[in-house]
Amino acid sequence: MKAEIICIGTELLLGQIVDTNAAFLAGELAGLGIDLYHKSTVGDNLERIAATLGQAWERSDLLLISGGLGPTQDDLTREAVARLLGEELEFNPEAWEQVVAYFRKTERPIPENNRRQAMFPKSARVAPNRWGTAPAMLVEKDKHLIMVMPGVPYELKGIWESYFKPYLKGVLQKEGSPVLTSLFVRMAGIGEAAMEEKILDLIRGQTNPTIAPYASRGEVALRITAKSQDENYNRELIARTLEAVKQRLGEYIYGYDRDNLETVIGRMLQAKKWRLALAESCTGGLIGHRITNVPGSSEYYLGGVNSYSNRLKTDLLGVSEATLAEHGAVSPETAAAMATGIRERTGTEVGLAVTGIAGPGGGSESKPVGLVFLAVALPERVVVERRVFPSDRIGNKESAAQAGLALLWRCLKESS
Amino acid sequence: MKAEIICIGTELLLGQIVDTNAAFLAGELAGLGIDLYHKSTVGDNLERIAATLGQAWERSDLLLISGGLGPTQDDLTREAVARLLGEELEFNPEAWEQVVAYFRKTERPIPENNRRQAMFPKSARVAPNRWGTAPAMLVEKDKHLIMVMPGVPYELKGIWESYFKPYLKGVLQKEGSPVLTSLFVRMAGIGEAAMEEKILDLIRGQTNPTIAPYASRGEVALRITAKSQDENYNRELIARTLEAVKQRLGEYIYGYDRDNLETVIGRMLQAKKWRLALAESCTGGLIGHRITNVPGSSEYYLGGVNSYSNRLKTDLLGVSEATLAEHGAVSPETAAAMATGIRERTGTEVGLAVTGIAGPGGGSESKPVGLVFLAVALPERVVVERRVFPSDRIGNKESAAQAGLALLWRCLKESS
Repeated sequence: MKAEIICIGTELLLGQIVDTNAAFLAGELAGLGIDLYHKSTVGDNLERIAATLGQAWERSDLLLISGGLGPTQDDLTREAVARLLGEELEFNPEAWEQVVAYFRKTERPIPENNRRQAMFPKSARVAPNRWGTAPAMLVEKDKHLIMVMPGVPYELKGIWESYFKPYLKGVLQKEGSPVLTSLFVRMAGIGEAAMEEKILDLIRGQTNPTIAPYASRGEVALRITAKSQDENYNRELIARTLEAVKQRLGEYIYGYDRDNLETVIGRMLQAKKWRLALAESCTGGLIGHRITNVPGSSEYYLGGVNSYSNRLKTDLLGVSEATLAEHGAVSPETAAAMATGIRERTGTEVGLAVTGIAGPGGGSESKPVGLVFLAVALPERVVVERRVFPSDRIGNKESAAQAGLALLWRCLKESS
Repeated sequence: MKAEIICIGTELLLGQIVDTNAAFLAGELAGLGIDLYHKSTVGDNLERIAATLGQAWERSDLLLISGGLGPTQDDLTREAVARLLGEELEFNPEAWEQVVAYFRKTERPIPENNRRQAMFPKSARVAPNRWGTAPAMLVEKDKHLIMVMPGVPYELKGIWESYFKPYLKGVLQKEGSPVLTSLFVRMAGIGEAAMEEKILDLIRGQTNPTIAPYASRGEVALRITAKSQDENYNRELIARTLEAVKQRLGEYIYGYDRDNLETVIGRMLQAKKWRLALAESCTGGLIGHRITNVPGSSEYYLGGVNSYSNRLKTDLLGVSEATLAEHGAVSPETAAAMATGIRERTGTEVGLAVTGIAGPGGGSESKPVGLVFLAVALPERVVVERRVFPSDRIGNKESAAQAGLALLWRCLKESS
């Protein structure tokens, strides 16, 4: 099966909306072992959309289309798909029911415009969209599969996961296609180049499984991918390679696949029956945001204080004015006092604190922009770490949050 | 000038990294009035990268290339550019100096691998990268311009803004190209379809300036774009259209262009000499993160409490146990008590509070997942708002944060 991704929307060519959908769908196709040869983007112009769809129909079997299903005049995907199929648009009561249900749920009146979203080509089936107003579309015709999803990323993901992906898996199973199996090995506390140096022979020396490094802010990952007719055999191949990787990089590995530091930390806290509280300064709440992105985090996360000002550091965390005066707000002493303070004031087993200079202002010779102190207060000890990040304000906040979570992970691991 | 964007990296075809760079660069080209006809993505394969660059060279004048400048074996962009130019790679001392300076700044040793990053084709000039290890590359040869940037988005943006964009502006000025001028009009508190209904005649009835609607979570925008030989004339055209838009949508407009709610709120607070504190429950710190993304926010933002548990709502915010028992943690009464509590405990003029059920668990018949109460405590009054969001956990958190900031903006506007 040859797949093609077509993203529709002038905003993508003008760059006003980031095209996360193409990347998401590409990853999903890779995970299913479906070859992706073409990725294209086209604006809100009926002629050009129709031409792009026509070309895709000629060279590919599976068309994943995103965008252009909204209620406004420049949402033309329904028209273009109808033209591709040589059909008229007609009112689809099932699609309309979805639009109505969505508005009812969000307690808003339905603008007349939204009726456009229920106009479907005759052979298109309605795919459920519980996340927004635009009903999605599935077409099976002349040995082609067309899946049309709205461009809003979380709607697209929801529809994909709950409907289109299971559908495709069923199709592949019937075809008896070769299976691709992947494992992401996630690490913290080591850079991309240093990681690669330790396993260069493995990366170069083998083709099944393949090993590929990935890096993003503050963490690196390896993707191990095996291909055969048998998923169990793939898993065996991967397990063998993983053993070799673990021998060289085991101390940095914190998780696999969809794990991230916040989910892994959550599991560790639950296993220990420990609770966490945060004292964030320069990260402004980002660590709390990440911790609470995990469903069920209220079981181990009590909350925290965003002590952006010195006043809140003393009033709400009990950092002494002497500590602030002598060492400054960005110091190992203040970080430790913040972590200890939030731990004591909330009665949790673990306190994590971050204080630093995100920039662009506020730096000095001895305390440059990007300087961050991280502290973890545990029942038996307090650990403080000093880091310097080289990015802009938001980059430094993200790096500091990542480093704080990495330190917390290491402390929890060492405490077990 | 015809431009082409080429993103390099197998991770983009496998979907492991979101391609924000293509969108960013597309937007920048649109802003400069440079036509973008082709956007392509190619994996880490020397033959295929070279073929893609060769095709781009044939049909375009300006090649914007991102990715493949890292230190590892699969970073092949330098080799491919050298092949395109018919040149050898040679050690570039200026590039090496940059790599060394970066590692010195971050206080880390330099892995041997990173030496690859200083291998440049002879006719390539080094463009400064203050944000990461990979030096960027500028080539001017045979009436073509090639700009190569690392794939890490904040590095790419930094290099683009500080070096490549000003360089391109200079080239365009010399050529006497027509000028494109755009204004983004940013709104909160109205949906995309409702907004469009109010100005459909304007959208349909005029071609210079053009008007295009955009929507993202919890906010909508209009892009007004004028084109002529004269930037001042463009601004006049835009101002006239803006007046017409304001007559119908003025009450929803909170800002323009790069404004977002947090920057606008920051300016309003500074103008009033008011300070803000936050009491976040279901948003987990996201509002604090957004507020502190604004440089200088420490002047008006004191901090806050992330009262994720009921215990912190009573201990740190002074919400009474009677209120929690009678109305529940997710109620207008608790939201108001949280906003009033953080305002009083920190001594600020404004307190913003959010409490809700992000999901997937925790919902009930009378209090469904997605139910959120927002409250703003001001010197003279407390405003509470009820909302229901239909998304997943992270979507609901993002919507709640956006709605909280929108409510705060409206309250500050009404208090002036």
